Amino acid sequence: MTTDIQLTPQGTLKHFLTPEGLSASLLTAILDKADTFFTHHGTQRKIKAMPLLKDKTVVNLFFENSTRTRTTFELAAKHLGAEVINMNIATSATSKGESLLDTIRNLESMFVDAFVVRHAVSGAAHFIAQQTAPHISVINAGDGQHAHPTQAMLDMFTIRQHKKDFTSLRVAIVGDILHSRVARSEIHALKILGVKEVRVIAPKTLLPSKIDTLGVSVSHDMAQGLEDIDVVIMLRLQKERMTSALLPSEREYFHCFGLTPERLHCAKPDAIVMHPGPINRGVEIASEVADGAQSVILQQVSNGVAVRMAVMAMTLCA
Amino acid sequence: MTTDIQLTPQGTLKHFLTPEGLSASLLTAILDKADTFFTHHGTQRKIKAMPLLKDKTVVNLFFENSTRTRTTFELAAKHLGAEVINMNIATSATSKGESLLDTIRNLESMFVDAFVVRHAVSGAAHFIAQQTAPHISVINAGDGQHAHPTQAMLDMFTIRQHKKDFTSLRVAIVGDILHSRVARSEIHALKILGVKEVRVIAPKTLLPSKIDTLGVSVSHDMAQGLEDIDVVIMLRLQKERMTSALLPSEREYFHCFGLTPERLHCAKPDAIVMHPGPINRGVEIASEVADGAQSVILQQVSNGVAVRMAVMAMTLCA
Amino acid sequence: MTTDIQLTPQGTLKHFLTPEGLSASLLTAILDKADTFFTHHGTQRKIKAMPLLKDKTVVNLFFENSTRTRTTFELAAKHLGAEVINMNIATSATSKGESLLDTIRNLESMFVDAFVVRHAVSGAAHFIAQQTAPHISVINAGDGQHAHPTQAMLDMFTIRQHKKDFTSLRVAIVGDILHSRVARSEIHALKILGVKEVRVIAPKTLLPSKIDTLGVSVSHDMAQGLEDIDVVIMLRLQKERMTSALLPSEREYFHCFGLTPERLHCAKPDAIVMHPGPINRGVEIASEVADGAQSVILQQVSNGVAVRMAVMAMTLCA
Repeated sequence: MTTDIQLTPQGTLKHFLTPEGLSASLLTAILDKADTFFTHHGTQRKIKAMPLLKDKTVVNLFFENSTRTRTTFELAAKHLGAEVINMNIATSATSKGESLLDTIRNLESMFVDAFVVRHAVSGAAHFIAQQTAPHISVINAGDGQHAHPTQAMLDMFTIRQHKKDFTSLRVAIVGDILHSRVARSEIHALKILGVKEVRVIAPKTLLPSKIDTLGVSVSHDMAQGLEDIDVVIMLRLQKERMTSALLPSEREYFHCFGLTPERLHCAKPDAIVMHPGPINRGVEIASEVADGAQSVILQQVSNGVAVRMAVMAMTLCA
Repeated sequence: MTTDIQLTPQGTLKHFLTPEGLSASLLTAILDKADTFFTHHGTQRKIKAMPLLKDKTVVNLFFENSTRTRTTFELAAKHLGAEVINMNIATSATSKGESLLDTIRNLESMFVDAFVVRHAVSGAAHFIAQQTAPHISVINAGDGQHAHPTQAMLDMFTIRQHKKDFTSLRVAIVGDILHSRVARSEIHALKILGVKEVRVIAPKTLLPSKIDTLGVSVSHDMAQGLEDIDVVIMLRLQKERMTSALLPSEREYFHCFGLTPERLHCAKPDAIVMHPGPINRGVEIASEVADGAQSVILQQVSNGVAVRMAVMAMTLCA
Repeated sequence: MTTDIQLTPQGTLKHFLTPEGLSASLLTAILDKADTFFTHHGTQRKIKAMPLLKDKTVVNLFFENSTRTRTTFELAAKHLGAEVINMNIATSATSKGESLLDTIRNLESMFVDAFVVRHAVSGAAHFIAQQTAPHISVINAGDGQHAHPTQAMLDMFTIRQHKKDFTSLRVAIVGDILHSRVARSEIHALKILGVKEVRVIAPKTLLPSKIDTLGVSVSHDMAQGLEDIDVVIMLRLQKERMTSALLPSEREYFHCFGLTPERLHCAKPDAIVMHPGPINRGVEIASEVADGAQSVILQQVSNGVAVRMAVMAMTLCA
């Protein structure tokens, strides 16, 4: 997929569909913008509301249910002063046989300014961005197994918050790489930002066949794979996979690929642990690690609000 | 049904339940008001937010699911600065055995200012308007097979936008007239605004038995029926009808009553094509026509936001 | 359950989980605060919007569906200028196997300021208040059979509106005391505010075994139980109970414990009749009484908006 569609002729962000093809300076601009939405009271951080999107209307267009992601986008848009319309498309006109394109044409005719799109099909957000009216921005909130760019950027924000310089970092992504749009977008973002190494750790059944073309190194063993690692990103294990013969039992998975305190010792002593949530305690991660001193999982959630504000502000004021 | 209930003692609009019984000058006032909410940037139109309903609360009271209609009312109310509460009544207290009247009494006690009502039963909005507290306005967003007045008015707005003078126009309404609240409200509005002719085109099974009492002419043939027509309004074919022995197959229906480019040639060369949406491509309308130069279907959607703003502003500031 | 958790070190309201353990002066402060949100136009009352919670975010966290209660909290929060996020948890991440605690941790990381919690399990709101971050307030919107404190306080508000002095009052609560969180919170609030007598009237099967420890008197007969009563609070009969062998038929129940005009004569002539709604006409209350001159049922609904504004303003500005 071409990604030029994401940029205005002036090179600013028009849509945000995938980190793929964007420049390091643009990704850094998103992180810097997100920074401006935080105020610091001693050690406490708070979000600063700013009416940058007054008189703008954002439509949360969720073809796939995701209360949590929808909520952070809704909060982010409201903090910017925008009007928000939530549309759960499972129950709407598409069930009356209307095509996706007709749904989009109708909504854009209502003078809205942005679509935040979640869809089970890879490429849905790109398709909408290609087809929609020129005044509308599209933000991908997860499309199939393709991309989840705001999740990737909130992860980048969290890494920068703790590690400052990307170029010296070795980052491990652990788990179901094959089905994960989060992993895919993280790999792109990390490579663009110039980390020293992205290492994926997974059983062979959960790796894409052409994983090497992404420029990552591969390990099938946790202890060995975590060596010298600065950042450990655990992926959520989709329980649906269990039944599909790709995986043994949950217990077996945890035994081989679960992040325990012992295993975490294989990484650098100051390594941080991340997870996009919701976590499966005792499946991909032990509770002691999820709640431990090296975990930054809840900071990721906080950063997600600011990063989504940044992406909305940048695309909608482009 | 009496319609005096729609007016204040001063003759202004208190509720908007049906165009039936309203004057041409009142309908024109709605269109004029809607005009004030548009700004023009070259050939582009935009909606202008105006805080006319600051401190007012509008309840979307949807007993029948309709994401699209609910969304335009929600947008319209928010553009006017109102607070909006969405109530999907399928899942609420009525399912605990509460009567409609008790639901209304409760909501009006919460100091809300308007109900936008969608209900599967004809007359539901009238009933609520009759029973509700004097400070509350009721706007009918579609009741059974009775009326859908804001849809009719956005159609009138669209016609005036393109054709200026109503009195010289011949308008065809094509399809399932029998079950259509849209057709019924359009016929009333068109007659009140003084068009030269309203012609309905439909198979005999989809016409009400007393259609002639509405002051319309009737045709059962598309080519003949479209002659001299300035405005073609296609109705959505409810697929449920197919199973009810009122209709042959979809293909057969399209063959006889579908609007194709060839058939559209039977109308005047500058005829416009309208449809309340969502459209069934290849059932009641060919894609070439729906997306063609004479189609104003998406303008109808845009106009719907302004017309609903107008109706809310007029009833709530009455 | 300890209730100190409800107060700040300065003794102001931090959470509102149950009236139990709070002082008469604090409950009175809630009523006084609620009073400030009403304006009076002749005999008409209106709610006055006040932007006390500008830049605050309130999350309606409903693990149990209740459109009516959710709507009053939403209205109350919006009248105070807060942002409101509605979360219906039945359809959210908890269904992906996330624990309640992880859901809470995630939401609090999004920089929200209050949770309005409805849950089928007694103690859920307390649990959340104990576990959540220090900057967050929790308001109990009904937990299992334990408490429904804002309902109790809007009832107190309604009683004070009509009866002025609590200390001279005899109050009857009639119906399913056993399963009622409303009854439990009302008993606590009435005792704290110092009424002369709280009398519960119910069949033996619908009374808790240790009812006497609550300091109430008990009657199993309507006519006798209503003697000298100033305030009659009818409870909703949960129809589910019918099947559980605790009750005879609805007709039989109405025959023995339904509030008819005749029975109401047994109470004081100026007694008021209350009900938390939604009412079952002809089951626990006759329509003539529900709609009669002594009924203040709809005033309860109105007062509920102001009381919830008061509780939100007090906890969130603590």
